[in-house]
Amino acid sequence: MKDTLKIMYLSPIGFSAYDTIFAEMIKENKFSNTEVHVTSMSSRVGLMDNLEYRTYNALIATELIKATRQASKEGFDALIIGCFYDPFLLDAREISGDMVVVGPSHSSIEIALKLSNKFSVIIGQTKWEHEMHSTIKEYGYGEHLASFRSVEMNVCEFQKDHDITASKLFKAAEMAVKEDHAESIILGCTLEFGFYEKIQEKLQVPVIDPSLASLKQAEQAAYLKRNFGWKPSRKWSCEAPPCADIEQFGLFKEEFVFGNRIIVK
Amino acid sequence: MKDTLKIMYLSPIGFSAYDTIFAEMIKENKFSNTEVHVTSMSSRVGLMDNLEYRTYNALIATELIKATRQASKEGFDALIIGCFYDPFLLDAREISGDMVVVGPSHSSIEIALKLSNKFSVIIGQTKWEHEMHSTIKEYGYGEHLASFRSVEMNVCEFQKDHDITASKLFKAAEMAVKEDHAESIILGCTLEFGFYEKIQEKLQVPVIDPSLASLKQAEQAAYLKRNFGWKPSRKWSCEAPPCADIEQFGLFKEEFVFGNRIIVK
Amino acid sequence: MKDTLKIMYLSPIGFSAYDTIFAEMIKENKFSNTEVHVTSMSSRVGLMDNLEYRTYNALIATELIKATRQASKEGFDALIIGCFYDPFLLDAREISGDMVVVGPSHSSIEIALKLSNKFSVIIGQTKWEHEMHSTIKEYGYGEHLASFRSVEMNVCEFQKDHDITASKLFKAAEMAVKEDHAESIILGCTLEFGFYEKIQEKLQVPVIDPSLASLKQAEQAAYLKRNFGWKPSRKWSCEAPPCADIEQFGLFKEEFVFGNRIIVK
Amino acid sequence: MKDTLKIMYLSPIGFSAYDTIFAEMIKENKFSNTEVHVTSMSSRVGLMDNLEYRTYNALIATELIKATRQASKEGFDALIIGCFYDPFLLDAREISGDMVVVGPSHSSIEIALKLSNKFSVIIGQTKWEHEMHSTIKEYGYGEHLASFRSVEMNVCEFQKDHDITASKLFKAAEMAVKEDHAESIILGCTLEFGFYEKIQEKLQVPVIDPSLASLKQAEQAAYLKRNFGWKPSRKWSCEAPPCADIEQFGLFKEEFVFGNRIIVK
Amino acid sequence: MKDTLKIMYLSPIGFSAYDTIFAEMIKENKFSNTEVHVTSMSSRVGLMDNLEYRTYNALIATELIKATRQASKEGFDALIIGCFYDPFLLDAREISGDMVVVGPSHSSIEIALKLSNKFSVIIGQTKWEHEMHSTIKEYGYGEHLASFRSVEMNVCEFQKDHDITASKLFKAAEMAVKEDHAESIILGCTLEFGFYEKIQEKLQVPVIDPSLASLKQAEQAAYLKRNFGWKPSRKWSCEAPPCADIEQFGLFKEEFVFGNRIIVK
Amino acid sequence: MKDTLKIMYLSPIGFSAYDTIFAEMIKENKFSNTEVHVTSMSSRVGLMDNLEYRTYNALIATELIKATRQASKEGFDALIIGCFYDPFLLDAREISGDMVVVGPSHSSIEIALKLSNKFSVIIGQTKWEHEMHSTIKEYGYGEHLASFRSVEMNVCEFQKDHDITASKLFKAAEMAVKEDHAESIILGCTLEFGFYEKIQEKLQVPVIDPSLASLKQAEQAAYLKRNFGWKPSRKWSCEAPPCADIEQFGLFKEEFVFGNRIIVK
Repeated sequence: MKDTLKIMYLSPIGFSAYDTIFAEMIKENKFSNTEVHVTSMSSRVGLMDNLEYRTYNALIATELIKATRQASKEGFDALIIGCFYDPFLLDAREISGDMVVVGPSHSSIEIALKLSNKFSVIIGQTKWEHEMHSTIKEYGYGEHLASFRSVEMNVCEFQKDHDITASKLFKAAEMAVKEDHAESIILGCTLEFGFYEKIQEKLQVPVIDPSLASLKQAEQAAYLKRNFGWKPSRKWSCEAPPCADIEQFGLFKEEFVFGNRIIVK
Repeated sequence: MKDTLKIMYLSPIGFSAYDTIFAEMIKENKFSNTEVHVTSMSSRVGLMDNLEYRTYNALIATELIKATRQASKEGFDALIIGCFYDPFLLDAREISGDMVVVGPSHSSIEIALKLSNKFSVIIGQTKWEHEMHSTIKEYGYGEHLASFRSVEMNVCEFQKDHDITASKLFKAAEMAVKEDHAESIILGCTLEFGFYEKIQEKLQVPVIDPSLASLKQAEQAAYLKRNFGWKPSRKWSCEAPPCADIEQFGLFKEEFVFGNRIIVK
Repeated sequence: MKDTLKIMYLSPIGFSAYDTIFAEMIKENKFSNTEVHVTSMSSRVGLMDNLEYRTYNALIATELIKATRQASKEGFDALIIGCFYDPFLLDAREISGDMVVVGPSHSSIEIALKLSNKFSVIIGQTKWEHEMHSTIKEYGYGEHLASFRSVEMNVCEFQKDHDITASKLFKAAEMAVKEDHAESIILGCTLEFGFYEKIQEKLQVPVIDPSLASLKQAEQAAYLKRNFGWKPSRKWSCEAPPCADIEQFGLFKEEFVFGNRIIVK
Repeated sequence: MKDTLKIMYLSPIGFSAYDTIFAEMIKENKFSNTEVHVTSMSSRVGLMDNLEYRTYNALIATELIKATRQASKEGFDALIIGCFYDPFLLDAREISGDMVVVGPSHSSIEIALKLSNKFSVIIGQTKWEHEMHSTIKEYGYGEHLASFRSVEMNVCEFQKDHDITASKLFKAAEMAVKEDHAESIILGCTLEFGFYEKIQEKLQVPVIDPSLASLKQAEQAAYLKRNFGWKPSRKWSCEAPPCADIEQFGLFKEEFVFGNRIIVK
Repeated sequence: MKDTLKIMYLSPIGFSAYDTIFAEMIKENKFSNTEVHVTSMSSRVGLMDNLEYRTYNALIATELIKATRQASKEGFDALIIGCFYDPFLLDAREISGDMVVVGPSHSSIEIALKLSNKFSVIIGQTKWEHEMHSTIKEYGYGEHLASFRSVEMNVCEFQKDHDITASKLFKAAEMAVKEDHAESIILGCTLEFGFYEKIQEKLQVPVIDPSLASLKQAEQAAYLKRNFGWKPSRKWSCEAPPCADIEQFGLFKEEFVFGNRIIVK
Repeated sequence: MKDTLKIMYLSPIGFSAYDTIFAEMIKENKFSNTEVHVTSMSSRVGLMDNLEYRTYNALIATELIKATRQASKEGFDALIIGCFYDPFLLDAREISGDMVVVGPSHSSIEIALKLSNKFSVIIGQTKWEHEMHSTIKEYGYGEHLASFRSVEMNVCEFQKDHDITASKLFKAAEMAVKEDHAESIILGCTLEFGFYEKIQEKLQVPVIDPSLASLKQAEQAAYLKRNFGWKPSRKWSCEAPPCADIEQFGLFKEEFVFGNRIIVK
């Protein structure tokens, strides 16, 4: 590998409480020559602690695009949009210059489908299903989806009582395997972290943690870019706005200021 | 019809140059008891005069959601998001309360498919095709799409030299009918206004103007809501963010201020 | 609106018992400047009181085509084929001249999908499902269909004991929402009239009555035709039989005589 | 084989000019213990000599259903609806009792796909494409269709100047193979008879004649019914109208009278 | 029919225990002028008595291709690959020369869909479902599949205790009809022979035995080849390896030796 | 990374001429702690120098499965099946124990779709298209495929005259971008090695070399397995044959002997 790979893990919420935990998880699992900046969107868009609603997603879109552009300008090789909806993945990819952008959902499915033919996604609320299903179908993975199984918890509850969460996630995963014939499980929220190993051990099928999945796929993408020149296409639907227009419209004039940054080397 | 229907036509760009023209077009074509407010997003998001790029779309998302919420609070029956990408249609629908939200693309296709089995969309640039195609497939109309035909003009050129535009649009539409077996034509940009009638007359197939289409479908939706109680579902994927959360996160605290408003009665 | 819109509501059965009720329903809900002729097929094809079977559909096809041609010649702007199978919709559209033809199923789905992302259809018998599902898939709405739910009643029972029907329709709709994650409900038979409001109020999701839906979509189509020239395409698959052939084959020589006509002004 | 198989080849037009030719073709190619009745619909529905339009199809629907019922009552084992649109195939199957109903399009595709992975259909006019494509997609064969190629002739011209027809069909088939990567060819009209062998010999790919295809598939179906009890399902969507209703509605009271019948033993 | 048709029924396992039974079944059901050679793959590939796993399928692929080539050289008109997975059907078809190759799954579905609109497949183990479903979707029949129903027996158990098997198959078929709305049933393993008639009689829907289905479809294909020249295409994806390459690579040098052959005349 | 990753790159042909070149390419591009064994199938299956035909694919299936089993027993973490058809990928995955199996086609597409929305595949001959298209559709990537473009060369010609090959590949890629609106290019044969960089530089879109793609995806998969326990599922369709059966049938008794092995450390 030629140089240090620079990756940003961006929680697309204005809420940094989990950043330290993600940073630890990343420290333990990244390659030695990868530098990861863990950050969130700062409180510019309100202190939403979740993105469960399309409304919340849309509310962070503007800032997310600015953040993407900023990360690209700072020379990051890859950006992780740290939410399982993969919000605005195609949009961010358009303005990312030479930086690759990945999302936890897409990353997790790629891994699950190298190990099995059908996966289920364990979600917090039935509410999430329609948007995630649309995204998965657009990726092309609709025929490989066994089911969604909801634990009827909201995002903020996942890390409150770990025993309850562990038990609910396990039961949902078990039902997905038994009833829906899932052959692998994807935990459908980045805040379902810390649980994959035990469920995997008990169920004896692959259980994918989306944050870890996106970290490793981001590293891989960054490496491929550096070594093979496999950087984002800028042709047709991937064409970025012209510089002249960006200047004329006064876009991106101010530097985007991320939330507190934890740099993991 | 029980009362005056209140409709907002919102140009989702921070650029009001065309508002007067749209207002005139609307004045001529609305029902007598409809009141339409024509407005744009104000210059909050830069003076972009087009939304050709996903980047630009995402840049207006936050404001668009706030605008939607504001329009809903002001008691509008229906909101038109005045761009053929139908940007953030599902997102806006989530936060729209009892207000129905429509987009020009969806509205135009509904009309075209009552009059024909296959339609083509005349777009400005090949760049647009992928996003529009994804949207059309998600609506379910993919199998009824004959083709996209691009005139290789950007949004701002459409209204510069009307003869050139008229000629290019006609040629593209003619090719769509002859080569791609389109049976109807949709003009794939709200700024392709003013041309549909002549092309329709010459080609002898329905040619749908997306702004007019969305105006009339909005009126229809507003009417149905008022008279049959057919207002937006708030179940499952349509569930809106809880009021308590909106308050806690401090969302929508400030009233959204639209750009200059032309009120058409 | 330029003139009086002329619409025909045609019950495609040789049985006029419900015509009065439909006429009342229409009177209450039409625009003031719409004139609607409510009629049925006369007893030419037997006194079938339902179209539950493909056989019955096919048995009325010949007359339906003649009726369509006649309505077109009489200058109607739009024709409603008053059966939820939308029988011979594309066929009737071919011979309808400048008259737009709509069906209750297509009309209802358009309304449901402006208000929700997934709908269920409440049908009388499982028997109906395959044909309706095929039609819905051909329209392109297959991915938006949550489910069919059958109340196991035949068409003629719907209006016998209103309490029983109301209760069965409500239960089926409730199950569709709870179990199948429907976000809106469509009553899948024109004879399920009179029930939508109460179910809507109790379930708090949109419940679409197909007759009303088709009436209003017909008015809208008629209006658009009159004001924007958006009349049926006659290109490619929409091409009508040549006049010379019609004459040579002796088709439509005799005037089609509708059943008793109730004219609602 | 237990007994003589009885098959009806029904030209669903009120025009018997080609019956003799079909009878000869059938005589040459049927099994020895098959009895085929070649007939047409009589002139009841006008003297249409083609079914190119949906209108014409619908105009013969009522009679076709009556004919089907009659054939079933007369004890035929299988009925061929002799038009490449396979008009009202599913409808006729509903009322066919123990008689199997087949169509030339479905029959031809089954044969083509045992010999190749992709087929093209040579049609008379572009007009036909949409309806045939819908039917083929509903059968499930959409992904195996390489293309339609039109020779721009109407049905009645096929048998006028055989040299011209042969030349046009060959050229269209050749283009389908070369340009559209067809691996087999289906002649998309029963009146394209008499040409398959030469094209097959010259092009060296299978060229399927739809009348012969339907004859042989009908014989096969008849045989399977007789020997294995594989007769039409009457469950769910295949349920036939109840006898009581048929009686009550006065359907099928009069015996259907076919056109002149040529009995081929 | 011009001559004796020569057909090979090949059990693609190195295990001949059932050959005699198949031979009897074939004797009873073939046309009089058909000669069928019933054989298996000899023990070259181990004594596997089933092909339930992809592994087993792949293990017989090489020999199956050699067997196909050999059968073609021996002048067979059609080859039946006697396993419901239709293993390597497209591959065998490539090297089969003028011999048509059919499989029990494809053959059974063709028959079921002439008699009904939806079928279910009764399989031995859930394990089989994914591969069979993929195959059925590739054929194009995915939308006509009501369900798979598993009896949780392995292949070798089917013929052990006939009462148990009969009872399990019947119950699964009954559930498929009642719960999944199947209108016909396909027994999803060639070793489910001997049961179709009773289930058919009790359930009153078509129940297709896959061995019989493939026998009759093979005879039909052989007949069509002989009489109409409808032999395998060798164009594009159907192109066979060039003779020169086969020679150069030393393929098919040795004659393939089948297992014991039962010749049924 | 915990330990040395062991990967096998297996050319699934009995022909080792290119092994040295692949070994060099791998040496240059692998991670330092990866050990790669480059080998081929030995001449057991004839000296085929390509797998262009389904026949050739099937001919190597048996040995490929044995090779997979052997590699798994030798403790490899990942196996690359070095042919762009990804032959028998799902089959090999079934018997691979804890070893992950990847193919060049699947690997390349994953990379292309992180950098673009539409890709084209540059193939040697039109012959290949059908099989590759089927595979790509089964993976789920069908809607992201812009086109296949054939250079009309066979596999063995790619490395004969590099200038000719370079020129033909470039022209095909350029046409794919210009005409088919591809946004990235995949070289559709492992023997198209050595060309990606120059085409990428000239065309300015990502051009994916399938061998390199599969090498890096194999390393990634091996790493994920080692560090997160993400090894192949053995549930449902992924269930492997029972050990008892393998023993009883005498499968895999003899150790599979690979061709000459080049070990790259």
